[in-house]
Amino acid sequence: MPTSKKYKIVGTSVIREDALHKVTGQLKFIDDYKFPNMLYGKVLFSKVPRAKSLKIDYSRALKIEGIQTILTAKDIPGTNVVPLIKDDWPFLANSEIRHIGEALALIAGESKEAIEEAVDKIKVSYEEIEPILTIEDSIKRKDDPILPDGNIISEYVIKKGDIKKGFEEADVVVQGEFRTHNQEHAYLEPQGMIAVPESDGTITVYGSMQCPFYVHNAVSRILGIPLNKVKVIQTPTGGGFGGKEDVPSLVAGWASLLAYHTKRPVKLILTREEDFISMSKRHASIVRHKLGAKKDGTLIACESEILFDGGAYSTLTPVVLWRGTIHMLGPYYCPNIYIKSYAYRTNKVPAGAFRGFGSPQVIFAGESLIDELAYKLNMDPLEFRRKNALTVGKQTATGHRLNESVNLIETIEAARKESNWEDKWKTYPIIKGNKARGIGISTIMYGVGLGAGGKKIDRSAAFVELHSDLSAKVSVGTTEIGQGMRTVLAQITAEALGIPYENVYIEMTDTSKVPDSGPTVASRSTFMSGNAILNACEKITNRMKMVAGKLFNLPPEKIYFENSTAITRTRPKQTLPLKKIVDKCLEERVPLADFGWFIAPFTSFDNKTGQGEAYYVYSFMTNIAEVEVDLKTGVVELIKMSSAVDIGQPINPEGVRGQIYGGVVQGLGYALLEKVIWENGKIINPEFATYIIPTIKDFDNIVPIIVPGSYSKGPYGAKGIGELPLMGIAPAVANAVRNALGIRFYEIPLLPELIFEKLINPDSSEKLSK
Amino acid sequence: MPTSKKYKIVGTSVIREDALHKVTGQLKFIDDYKFPNMLYGKVLFSKVPRAKSLKIDYSRALKIEGIQTILTAKDIPGTNVVPLIKDDWPFLANSEIRHIGEALALIAGESKEAIEEAVDKIKVSYEEIEPILTIEDSIKRKDDPILPDGNIISEYVIKKGDIKKGFEEADVVVQGEFRTHNQEHAYLEPQGMIAVPESDGTITVYGSMQCPFYVHNAVSRILGIPLNKVKVIQTPTGGGFGGKEDVPSLVAGWASLLAYHTKRPVKLILTREEDFISMSKRHASIVRHKLGAKKDGTLIACESEILFDGGAYSTLTPVVLWRGTIHMLGPYYCPNIYIKSYAYRTNKVPAGAFRGFGSPQVIFAGESLIDELAYKLNMDPLEFRRKNALTVGKQTATGHRLNESVNLIETIEAARKESNWEDKWKTYPIIKGNKARGIGISTIMYGVGLGAGGKKIDRSAAFVELHSDLSAKVSVGTTEIGQGMRTVLAQITAEALGIPYENVYIEMTDTSKVPDSGPTVASRSTFMSGNAILNACEKITNRMKMVAGKLFNLPPEKIYFENSTAITRTRPKQTLPLKKIVDKCLEERVPLADFGWFIAPFTSFDNKTGQGEAYYVYSFMTNIAEVEVDLKTGVVELIKMSSAVDIGQPINPEGVRGQIYGGVVQGLGYALLEKVIWENGKIINPEFATYIIPTIKDFDNIVPIIVPGSYSKGPYGAKGIGELPLMGIAPAVANAVRNALGIRFYEIPLLPELIFEKLINPDSSEKLSK
Repeated sequence: MPTSKKYKIVGTSVIREDALHKVTGQLKFIDDYKFPNMLYGKVLFSKVPRAKSLKIDYSRALKIEGIQTILTAKDIPGTNVVPLIKDDWPFLANSEIRHIGEALALIAGESKEAIEEAVDKIKVSYEEIEPILTIEDSIKRKDDPILPDGNIISEYVIKKGDIKKGFEEADVVVQGEFRTHNQEHAYLEPQGMIAVPESDGTITVYGSMQCPFYVHNAVSRILGIPLNKVKVIQTPTGGGFGGKEDVPSLVAGWASLLAYHTKRPVKLILTREEDFISMSKRHASIVRHKLGAKKDGTLIACESEILFDGGAYSTLTPVVLWRGTIHMLGPYYCPNIYIKSYAYRTNKVPAGAFRGFGSPQVIFAGESLIDELAYKLNMDPLEFRRKNALTVGKQTATGHRLNESVNLIETIEAARKESNWEDKWKTYPIIKGNKARGIGISTIMYGVGLGAGGKKIDRSAAFVELHSDLSAKVSVGTTEIGQGMRTVLAQITAEALGIPYENVYIEMTDTSKVPDSGPTVASRSTFMSGNAILNACEKITNRMKMVAGKLFNLPPEKIYFENSTAITRTRPKQTLPLKKIVDKCLEERVPLADFGWFIAPFTSFDNKTGQGEAYYVYSFMTNIAEVEVDLKTGVVELIKMSSAVDIGQPINPEGVRGQIYGGVVQGLGYALLEKVIWENGKIINPEFATYIIPTIKDFDNIVPIIVPGSYSKGPYGAKGIGELPLMGIAPAVANAVRNALGIRFYEIPLLPELIFEKLINPDSSEKLSK
Repeated sequence: MPTSKKYKIVGTSVIREDALHKVTGQLKFIDDYKFPNMLYGKVLFSKVPRAKSLKIDYSRALKIEGIQTILTAKDIPGTNVVPLIKDDWPFLANSEIRHIGEALALIAGESKEAIEEAVDKIKVSYEEIEPILTIEDSIKRKDDPILPDGNIISEYVIKKGDIKKGFEEADVVVQGEFRTHNQEHAYLEPQGMIAVPESDGTITVYGSMQCPFYVHNAVSRILGIPLNKVKVIQTPTGGGFGGKEDVPSLVAGWASLLAYHTKRPVKLILTREEDFISMSKRHASIVRHKLGAKKDGTLIACESEILFDGGAYSTLTPVVLWRGTIHMLGPYYCPNIYIKSYAYRTNKVPAGAFRGFGSPQVIFAGESLIDELAYKLNMDPLEFRRKNALTVGKQTATGHRLNESVNLIETIEAARKESNWEDKWKTYPIIKGNKARGIGISTIMYGVGLGAGGKKIDRSAAFVELHSDLSAKVSVGTTEIGQGMRTVLAQITAEALGIPYENVYIEMTDTSKVPDSGPTVASRSTFMSGNAILNACEKITNRMKMVAGKLFNLPPEKIYFENSTAITRTRPKQTLPLKKIVDKCLEERVPLADFGWFIAPFTSFDNKTGQGEAYYVYSFMTNIAEVEVDLKTGVVELIKMSSAVDIGQPINPEGVRGQIYGGVVQGLGYALLEKVIWENGKIINPEFATYIIPTIKDFDNIVPIIVPGSYSKGPYGAKGIGELPLMGIAPAVANAVRNALGIRFYEIPLLPELIFEKLINPDSSEKLSK
């Protein structure tokens, strides 16, 4: 379906609602908040990866002037478990330590100096245990489980067709073992919370977060108080990327526990290093992947083994692995599939949610090997992808026959055109002096929303009110984390109510204003909150149409609202100012406010076979990377990235392009720069001098393209954009490097040293010819 | 209808939700709130009652260290008018001054000392004008209007039958001119607000108030910003009594203007004296009243002229006068009525809302004269009232035929029994030594809610959410001002959802959580917010019944919820824990939250005739006062007050009794102690050393009685209690004094000096025989 200009506000690039306040530095973030009589909180983190018989002596620390309290697990009045999927994660270590960066004790004091001094004076004793630090070790040492339920956190399978027969029938087979490392979210603003005990016995928690309802639950749990006595208010949040999905529950739990015991507001902001060592990361992975195709380029078999390193506690690993499993094959039709996935515990900081949520790892493997398969078939990798691409009517790996909104081929075409693929594919690699140029492609799909894996919580609420001055305010349960949600939802509200975009204010998310609307993850906010808003707006506008109908002497369905005007669907049109309808409604006491609710469309998943409609809809993307590799240094330079998305109807095209820029750059970091380095369970580069993230200057030729599309169940046809742009970048780059150098890399990041090592010492199995 | 024990939680005297936090002093009021970087605000008030050509020179004051800004009317970016019924009230005086205590300029500074110093350094110049200080003057000087629209703020009429014929047919006629003075609300907590400019360009106002939506409008208006950019959050409020209905808009406007210009939080708390001179009072009145009856005691004619002193600006005077007009006759049937009412401007602080809202003044006149009529007929005044009392099927003064919930006679009976009326009436007055004992009665009605006069805003909203742990939270648009609303609404919610009272939390009222629900006045909160809550709860429980129906395999209507249990209407009953139903709902993504809305029942009023269904329902009350007058000092001592109410179903009987104690004591203050004393437009007793209010020790034998009743449209049968107990106290006391002394007093308060004066110098027209 084409993107038509059928909407007035949707589809236009209005200026972000927060642009002015962010650009001028006016907007307050959690560390800018102060409360009277506020204490500072600090956490004592473990310095060893595994130990038992933990004993904490804080008697000396407690004597430091200004120290108000020091707390350990025994001081938790509620339950010492962060509520998530599996309840295995303590807010504070009990007698066992399971990773470096695990919280052992909490301190609250009058000044930052006092708490800094105190944390060093706490004496910790324990018996160290040999830690498990790799997936391989975790598998090997299954009789030495990190937690009583064993070292496997979760496992899935996808079975389709006959995998044995598939490979027998294949003319060409490729395989490889791919590795990815942890990635750090590197949000601008570290984790931070302020817990405020209210004078009526309730508690309010303010902070930087993606998922206020997770925090709401967590605070209720740790304090053992009812949910209606806890209020969680998100403050402007300086980035999340998944890193503020699960772990803010920890930080909020800590701050709340300190506030509970001291009866004073407590601010707890992690330093960058504390944040780095104690907060979640993208899962490191090993993917063993094998593909088979017919001579004509028809993909016929896919066998994969996915291994994720979950760290010590399960947190979101079960669903991260699930999404990874579903996305293993990529956006292709393949009749014979056997995918098996496992997540293992190690004595490392728990891995959690990160933009893409388990899919960038498998997509790196998948899209690298698809490329290799094309090379082996002597086919243009773009053509190979086009040939096998999902289209309407075809089935995904989980047997989901897609019946609408599949514009993958259109993204391939758009990126092809933008990148001048044919010419380059013919002529590349080109080596000039010390520089080798290559081009590479990846095509991907992304299941929007929580899918069948999280379907029970895939619902969203909204509360909308239209005021007498035609200004409107909206509360939703999802959050603005820099992605532009509030702007997009204001556009949707304005479109639905027929008022200007500037007239809409989206409230900061507050758990006391709307019921649990699920997490702000999985590219679901536009779709879910947008639909919930439409539901509320529909109730309101239906009433307004009844009232307007009386004024026009027409049935309500003959009226619509646009540009602050009530307009009739008659010839000739009649109009009335919307203000007049609103005044009449107010006079008649017709409520111009209501609650909206939206339940995600149908999904299904059979755990035994891995078959079902795993997600209700998919977004699609093609990235074509052109790179130049410095043969003397191994440095990869991006020449151009052509990035085309099918996300249904873009609500704010400039916002979508912004998401593409950001996602691609973060993907380039993942592909080329970012590596968490471990030594004996310790991250030795916990800051941005040694953990390198791309800056705005590193990659400047990214061309975002939005392919026309629409999804019938989306708000005004939208699907979701948030995570998509990061996911396919690593393989597009790796494929371009492969093209430039003739070397297949099975690991990211493609650090200069890794490339240089291969350049001077080519491994026969990796040195391939075009 | 009898009060049966058909409810589980409604009708039980649960402990007030705020009892613990108030008794322990833990609850924070507005002056306990602090915000970082907060300034203190102060107002320069006028010291003259009337002037023109106002000029303000604050150059010296601005130089004082710590002074951040000084503002006058010209600094208002929006509109300099408090939005209410008539738009005549400036936030800050323009060039004219119209009363002492009018705000002329605003100051914000770093400390209280700085602003105190600055306020004295501001030079004000003007040309004084001869002020209008009495109703009589206002009438006389109609060509010298205080505002361009003239000195009459509003006027009403009630015409019924033939008044001339009525008096011609009367066997007995009595008449008198009654006077009442201003009463001060004397809330424990003076007016106070803190305006906080938020970092995203919105503004939040916290404060002590009854009507957040009035404040919401006012702040939007003075700043000229849209309603969706203003948020008003009520803080725990130390009393209102009507005095925090309209005037908080002023205080909030002032604080907001200072915050707007300084871009910092500004706290503005009035001192007691500032509050006294600048904030609204109960209207002073003159009522000329005439009644006629047949020999058999049938009331046959009522002619009245009501004159209210509105002060300089109209504020709520039009509706206060309207309510007074409607309540003039009292709870009696009378075929011939002519009532005319006027409110006049004077150069005094505007009179506004006060518990009873214009009715205590006319009830003092009405119930005094009814008594006199009974004396003249040689009838027992109780019998006279019983004979003429409204019952189901009879018409009010406005021709409203009452069709249910009229238990006036039951209140007469209950108070009669409690007071041992017959015996006392036979034997009183008794004079022993210096003490004379007498007994007196009043019977009253009170129209619950805003009635036809305010019908356009008589609607209320609620937002209810039931959590997974069976705790529930509720937002409403009305406020807790000490009357116990939150307790009562928690009971209603608990009853409706079938959960314990303790499981319900009523949020502090916040304009961003629910739409405009009208003011917290007119004894309407239980009825209006209670019904809105029931509307929301019904939506939620209907969904829960659908889900439970599937579990029980029964139709939804066969299921109800009680005691945290789902119960079937079958024999035998089946049960399931409510938690199980809630979990199932959550699993199925059924929303356990919704928006509730309630529109007040039908009312009508014809302005030409004063006929119509002025209120949808009435509460009724009988007070019997037994007093002892000290003949040497004129001091009146209360021996006993028997106070019986018909308020439909009491939600919390102890709460109702609390309202009766409080209202009766406040009524006794009005009757016996409280007098605002004026000198040239200035209140000369603006503090509690000279303006005497009763304390808990002054009156201790008040016996509250709740007569069984129920109103079909009330939440679980409730009507309203808030104002009722104050209204009939003054005439009951005056009638008892009349009984004791044989002297009719036409003025309250019955100060010792007033009584003593009459005792030593009896006026023939006032000295009457029993």
